[in-house]
Amino acid sequence: MSAPREVASGGKFSIARVARAWYVACASGELGEKPLARTILNTPLVLFRGLDNKPAALLDRCAHRNAPLSLGNTLQGELQCAYHGWRYDSSGVCVGVPGLVGDAEKNVRAVPRFPARDQDGYVWVYTAADEEPTAGPFRLPAASVGYTEVRRSVEVSSTLHAALENALDVPHTAFLHQGLFRGTGRTSRIRVRVTRTTDRVEAEYVGEPRPEGLVGKILSPSGGIVTHFDRFILPSIAQVEYRLGAENHFLITTLCTPVDDFRTRLYAAILFRTRFPGWLVRLLIEPIARRIFSQDAAMLRRQAETARRFGGEHYSSTEVDVLGLQIWLLLKRAEQGEAPAEDWLREFEMEV
Amino acid sequence: MSAPREVASGGKFSIARVARAWYVACASGELGEKPLARTILNTPLVLFRGLDNKPAALLDRCAHRNAPLSLGNTLQGELQCAYHGWRYDSSGVCVGVPGLVGDAEKNVRAVPRFPARDQDGYVWVYTAADEEPTAGPFRLPAASVGYTEVRRSVEVSSTLHAALENALDVPHTAFLHQGLFRGTGRTSRIRVRVTRTTDRVEAEYVGEPRPEGLVGKILSPSGGIVTHFDRFILPSIAQVEYRLGAENHFLITTLCTPVDDFRTRLYAAILFRTRFPGWLVRLLIEPIARRIFSQDAAMLRRQAETARRFGGEHYSSTEVDVLGLQIWLLLKRAEQGEAPAEDWLREFEMEV
Amino acid sequence: MSAPREVASGGKFSIARVARAWYVACASGELGEKPLARTILNTPLVLFRGLDNKPAALLDRCAHRNAPLSLGNTLQGELQCAYHGWRYDSSGVCVGVPGLVGDAEKNVRAVPRFPARDQDGYVWVYTAADEEPTAGPFRLPAASVGYTEVRRSVEVSSTLHAALENALDVPHTAFLHQGLFRGTGRTSRIRVRVTRTTDRVEAEYVGEPRPEGLVGKILSPSGGIVTHFDRFILPSIAQVEYRLGAENHFLITTLCTPVDDFRTRLYAAILFRTRFPGWLVRLLIEPIARRIFSQDAAMLRRQAETARRFGGEHYSSTEVDVLGLQIWLLLKRAEQGEAPAEDWLREFEMEV
Repeated sequence: MSAPREVASGGKFSIARVARAWYVACASGELGEKPLARTILNTPLVLFRGLDNKPAALLDRCAHRNAPLSLGNTLQGELQCAYHGWRYDSSGVCVGVPGLVGDAEKNVRAVPRFPARDQDGYVWVYTAADEEPTAGPFRLPAASVGYTEVRRSVEVSSTLHAALENALDVPHTAFLHQGLFRGTGRTSRIRVRVTRTTDRVEAEYVGEPRPEGLVGKILSPSGGIVTHFDRFILPSIAQVEYRLGAENHFLITTLCTPVDDFRTRLYAAILFRTRFPGWLVRLLIEPIARRIFSQDAAMLRRQAETARRFGGEHYSSTEVDVLGLQIWLLLKRAEQGEAPAEDWLREFEMEV
Repeated sequence: MSAPREVASGGKFSIARVARAWYVACASGELGEKPLARTILNTPLVLFRGLDNKPAALLDRCAHRNAPLSLGNTLQGELQCAYHGWRYDSSGVCVGVPGLVGDAEKNVRAVPRFPARDQDGYVWVYTAADEEPTAGPFRLPAASVGYTEVRRSVEVSSTLHAALENALDVPHTAFLHQGLFRGTGRTSRIRVRVTRTTDRVEAEYVGEPRPEGLVGKILSPSGGIVTHFDRFILPSIAQVEYRLGAENHFLITTLCTPVDDFRTRLYAAILFRTRFPGWLVRLLIEPIARRIFSQDAAMLRRQAETARRFGGEHYSSTEVDVLGLQIWLLLKRAEQGEAPAEDWLREFEMEV
Repeated sequence: MSAPREVASGGKFSIARVARAWYVACASGELGEKPLARTILNTPLVLFRGLDNKPAALLDRCAHRNAPLSLGNTLQGELQCAYHGWRYDSSGVCVGVPGLVGDAEKNVRAVPRFPARDQDGYVWVYTAADEEPTAGPFRLPAASVGYTEVRRSVEVSSTLHAALENALDVPHTAFLHQGLFRGTGRTSRIRVRVTRTTDRVEAEYVGEPRPEGLVGKILSPSGGIVTHFDRFILPSIAQVEYRLGAENHFLITTLCTPVDDFRTRLYAAILFRTRFPGWLVRLLIEPIARRIFSQDAAMLRRQAETARRFGGEHYSSTEVDVLGLQIWLLLKRAEQGEAPAEDWLREFEMEV
């Protein structure tokens, strides 16, 4: 695969490519009769459904003349190239070459195949060709009684690491999203407890008052104390959990798919329960969430542009960059297939 | 000349640059009083007509401050630069520098000139600067009595080789152009005879029934046997010939001009005679031909994009890729100025 | 700073980067409450006004996560980053990190600062970070009684050198701007005297008749002799001066700012006095000046494109390229910080 690693020379960009991992390729409902083109870790893939309706993922390049297979059609569970009609089964083997009479080498022709499966409403792909994964994809939390689930997907122009750090960062919310969530002026000093285990790092915010922005006011007009966790789980999952009193519970799981070094696709599954009906909360929160998201996307794009403009990132960090460095550590170890880091704990105070 | 040869490192792209050859630069009628900019083999040229109305081709770069000469004007058979008014004659010599008093070095200033001539309705340029070609351009077949001629030109985003292979390929017609020409389901087993001589390779399709698609039905409702030849002629000519019964004869000559490594301009001269009047056939066939062509252009573009995406072509071939490899062989030998390959013959069966 | 110097390898492009010099960043009136992004010598800068309303220029990259500081806001003379709210003073020191409790390293965080000042209606920036310049910016000629001043700014896609040569070149006016200024057919032989001193080169055109184009006719219907000087002053100033009789005086000072190697921003300050009222001259001359300028901008862009297309400039010069080579000599010496060239004089004849 041609990979623009050169931009990362000298480790100047926070680019980690964790292969041998499951990533979301699309929502299960997006993959129907037409093949679908998706790129993961800079590898163009074609997704289609075989005879058993199970998803299959092949390299998106016909073995014959390199036409993208995603331009073709699915016919009886086989993928047919749009250029000369070569047909492939779910394992990537070419099972038909139109025009050819008597073909001894028939089963030699093939394109690389990637493990694929439907799970929790997404099509997941394992990013190692012609290899069997030893474990399955991350299991999404299920919606219990009284919960509503909303799913959203969007692509940002940033590294996987910058997208993950942004998704789990507290201080920027008071500035980039001023007034929507935090940033109304009043701050409190609270404790933060960070715990890193083999495949994840989690921050617990202890004693945080209800955020003063629009979102908090809608959910809990009378204030209260929040229980708040931010979690990163390998290879690319960001999870934010809020409890506000006994009634309100929010669990936002963002499955990140590295499209290439500077593009990341986010699949967010938002589970919530409040004292209001789900449809009403959706109605009130959705425009605010859209605004928050577009602010993040614009900033991530400008941040990446600036780093590229200067030939690399020149970051400096403080204690309140709570999870960014830990996420980077876990990603780099996973990229190198290293043994998991030993457990680790940190406690400190910050203003929110 | 700055040439993106690096993309071809390791021979991974089917790029052959046959210099010292005649290519079509434009239709003769396109070149009038205004100079015309054209690029051939990645070399920017300016075309204009001298005092004798004969075409001239110079490097499109003023010797003074490198303004494109094609922005200028033709004045009494001389080309005048739009920036400072330097004037050039048809041989590329600078014959006037405005403002300059008493100029000893007058005849030293010049831009490279390329041989150019009008022939068969096209302006042809020989791609070696300040050199005299030993032979003339390819002679187009002339329209005899009862024949109609149609000419079309279009640019595709592909290598010269991919464009030529596509123009002379049979199997793709049943898939990419399904229903228009071939690909209605029924197939027959026929013999193919391939003959390669010093400057060309030809495939004869023996015993091919009339194609079942729209085009065949319009021309010969009652079916019949087709005589069908596909030919490649150095440096860049693709010719397809069909005879259907005694009355119908089609001869499509496509003169390909390599603009740069990944862009090719096609000048097609279509000669035909049928039992119907020429204007009627034109009327019926033209929308179908346009559709066929736009399908080819889109596929060639996607094919080239995919090869570039992967850092090179990864092709595999079978017997029914009848001419592609032979075209490549001839192009590469011609590029290296090697002695012509010895004659060669192959016969085999295929389904059409 | 990542600088595309590789394009200049082999000295094939007229690119000179004179650092340790003052350049105009914007008009003083353009810099108000909002920070402003400007690029000089390929370095992205953010301009803002401190508490004293004095201009400040910092590298446009937050020390924290590299967001462009120009997306932020000015608050009480401090620049606040839009992402996480880090605050910087006019010296580039970070004076606040929101959320952070008890910070020992506070004064270590900073972004590079560039000297900046308001002078003659422009904000000037000195292109060496955290250094004190020994001299001030170029002083613009002031408007005396009876003079009108017009200011214009525009960006061209060309090297600094090509823009300067164009601004001070006489022969092109008869062709590129045919009929507007010169180029009506009649020419006269005149003397040119070129004088180069340590920081400038000046051409005096002796005995030049009034230009026959539109501009000349408007100003002096009865003709007359012109006094005409063209001057280049280091690092990037082009000055054209015309006197036509006792009444008419034009002094056009163009302050050029190298944005990057192939983009140059021109700030023109036009001072004039004629026998007509200033507002009337403006009204008549402005559309002609706009037309002249857009012709120059288009040609400079095409000239640069052609040089890049061919991998470098391939220029040839004659005596009537009066100032171009001298400008280049002065720029290269200044870039290398060399001692000034010794004085030099040349006289010759040309046709205008």
